[in-house]
Amino acid sequence: MDILVVGSVAFDTIETPFGKGDDVLGGSATYFSTSASFFTGVKLVAVVGDDFPDEPKEFLTSCGVDLAGLQTQPGATFRWKGRYGYDLNEAHTLETHLNVFETFHPQLPESYRNAEYVFLANIDPELQLEVLKQVENPKLVACDTMNFWIEGKRDALIKTLGHVDILVINEAEVRQLANEANLVKASKAVLAMGPKTLVVKRGEYGVLVFNEHSIFSAPAYPLEEVYDPTGAGDTFAGGFMGYLAATDNPNEETIRKATVFGSVMASFTVEDFSLNRLRKLDWNEVEERFRHFQALTAFAGL
Amino acid sequence: MDILVVGSVAFDTIETPFGKGDDVLGGSATYFSTSASFFTGVKLVAVVGDDFPDEPKEFLTSCGVDLAGLQTQPGATFRWKGRYGYDLNEAHTLETHLNVFETFHPQLPESYRNAEYVFLANIDPELQLEVLKQVENPKLVACDTMNFWIEGKRDALIKTLGHVDILVINEAEVRQLANEANLVKASKAVLAMGPKTLVVKRGEYGVLVFNEHSIFSAPAYPLEEVYDPTGAGDTFAGGFMGYLAATDNPNEETIRKATVFGSVMASFTVEDFSLNRLRKLDWNEVEERFRHFQALTAFAGL
Repeated sequence: MDILVVGSVAFDTIETPFGKGDDVLGGSATYFSTSASFFTGVKLVAVVGDDFPDEPKEFLTSCGVDLAGLQTQPGATFRWKGRYGYDLNEAHTLETHLNVFETFHPQLPESYRNAEYVFLANIDPELQLEVLKQVENPKLVACDTMNFWIEGKRDALIKTLGHVDILVINEAEVRQLANEANLVKASKAVLAMGPKTLVVKRGEYGVLVFNEHSIFSAPAYPLEEVYDPTGAGDTFAGGFMGYLAATDNPNEETIRKATVFGSVMASFTVEDFSLNRLRKLDWNEVEERFRHFQALTAFAGL
Repeated sequence: MDILVVGSVAFDTIETPFGKGDDVLGGSATYFSTSASFFTGVKLVAVVGDDFPDEPKEFLTSCGVDLAGLQTQPGATFRWKGRYGYDLNEAHTLETHLNVFETFHPQLPESYRNAEYVFLANIDPELQLEVLKQVENPKLVACDTMNFWIEGKRDALIKTLGHVDILVINEAEVRQLANEANLVKASKAVLAMGPKTLVVKRGEYGVLVFNEHSIFSAPAYPLEEVYDPTGAGDTFAGGFMGYLAATDNPNEETIRKATVFGSVMASFTVEDFSLNRLRKLDWNEVEERFRHFQALTAFAGL
């Protein structure tokens, strides 16, 4: 099954202790699509300015990403500037220029409307709902969000969550959304808002997946070289949704395996700036690292 | 096999957002011994003041802890006062009164000197080495340490590490000891100091175990009620060493399983103040939670 994703396509300027990237390709929909394309076809919904070059579009198309839903508007593409210290878990935003994204209203091409798997990346929850209304009968809807919307558009976000099967957010945001310090209690409160599954991203500490009946814990892959964590969360979501859409049988077992595939994909993204590592990645490496995750977590029973 | 442990027996005054404990039983050797006693016999080396009551001694003896090495000196028992905020990962020390611990020099009873499993809890690395010199031919030596000794007695600590098989320390302390921000690189540097195995405690994020060839990741158990993290690390070490000594076959497989048993024991300690939860714990609960750890981490292969 193909996945429909709505999110940002952007240029990022990033400083980390290990180097600098100027106006490199980024954006949630870009990372998500590239990652998901290792598993299945992707239909992308986003907007870019008339300054956007052909190369990234050719790259995405070559990955099997359908760009019929990528609007081009007069003006500049969304730009983000951020810095990471040695604690690579936290990005410090230096500048955000929404540019053409400021007036973006997603319009789904006719060919997108029967999508069964939908990922609403981290954008205004009102836009997330606008997209969802244009999809006829989705089988599984997942979304991301961030502190900015939790603070500024709480009601709209909670409305969107009522239509979402899986919420994928950061640990601090779960606590903020539930207004509860204990993560287990906070997760229960968030599940009560609608999602049947909550995927909690904890950066270098991995992922916890909560549903009504169980918790699954997946580690992050311990890496010797982490250059740039930008896009790790969206790459995770791409691998996660990609595996679920490819297997088309979302249940506890496939969601657990999807979580590991998401973690595998994210572990590659952080090894280089922008999408550089994903661009060079092949499927054998993905399978090899999946096996490393098995070795990383295996222990004998009682 | 019995385990010899040297460490503190203390009274703690603790404030957390969930309550307060005044002069409650604590100390690294106390938590360690109680936890390890679920798996094997323990020989304790420590000092208390002449203010130390009988009840804790009777309790430890009833657990199978040998107190022949517990000295009583004129003066007051070691006291620690600390506070935790909602981030229960970090203790804020308010007061430390070493009292009789200040002039402590461990003297091993004759019956302790043939111990095969030794745990040197977080005390002055010079004292750790003093203890080790009194043990005839240990099979496996593990130790803990802290930022205070890494900063103040670095040379002595590195000397002790040359005699240690397994080092069990916090994540921030690994980075500090190696002077390296990347945890994988830092762990390699610490392994080069002597220990064949490095157990990195990450609080609510679990444990990473490094050796020359592999990495093992164990989660912490996600708990809805965490009252007091004091003693979690020593309780972990007790379960970890307890299982290794009981099975008496330290290899990668048993070290992984020991890590999970350590995590199981620690997950109980934090559910109440002091040793209150461990005092009520029975073996069936330990096995049940071990199975919960298996369910928490299980996923299907490729």
